[in-house]
Amino acid sequence: MSTKNLNIGFLFDFYGELLSDRQKNMFDLYYNEDLSLSEIAEQVGITRQGVRDTVKKAEELLLDFENKLGLAGRFNEISQKCNLMTERLEILKSNHPDSEFQIDSLIKDIKNIAQL
Amino acid sequence: MSTKNLNIGFLFDFYGELLSDRQKNMFDLYYNEDLSLSEIAEQVGITRQGVRDTVKKAEELLLDFENKLGLAGRFNEISQKCNLMTERLEILKSNHPDSEFQIDSLIKDIKNIAQL
Repeated sequence: MSTKNLNIGFLFDFYGELLSDRQKNMFDLYYNEDLSLSEIAEQVGITRQGVRDTVKKAEELLLDFENKLGLAGRFNEISQKCNLMTERLEILKSNHPDSEFQIDSLIKDIKNIAQL
Repeated sequence: MSTKNLNIGFLFDFYGELLSDRQKNMFDLYYNEDLSLSEIAEQVGITRQGVRDTVKKAEELLLDFENKLGLAGRFNEISQKCNLMTERLEILKSNHPDSEFQIDSLIKDIKNIAQL
């Protein structure tokens, strides 16, 4: 297995529910709980190789879902663009202190969109 | 099969790539090309019942993906909120004609986010 990768955790947040319970559980223990393969093997009562294969299969499925659907990438792009808009609204606000209330409300909205 | 439903087409745009080629093809002919079950049966050389079962299975899978992931719903909500923001930015612009250029640029950005 390659080194632990942050991006795969992002994909898990999007597509994790399409994995089997077994895949989800081991993926979660390995990536989110940061247990080693051996520790997971001991905990669930299978071989270290069995854990490795399951986590690897889960990774492959998550990458395959994203390759086919691209939805995590789209959300990521939306989030980045919302952050840029927030910065630009802050500049607009500094130029129009009389509309501070209105613009603050728009900033709140765009931050809300970024978190959807 | 129930009546043709617009929402299922929206889900197909999101999750269609997770269907098999056979499911994708028949779903597309039925919903997007608006062919009848009998017409599709004739075209692909299977029974009308076979087409019905395949399209129904595709529908169930699409609904199941959305029930598990909810990503189409999230995108829909983002799109609606972006449209509301556009309206509010238009109002802001009418109050600040001196910042028309800046605000138009923000409107362009938010429309862009809505289409991602």
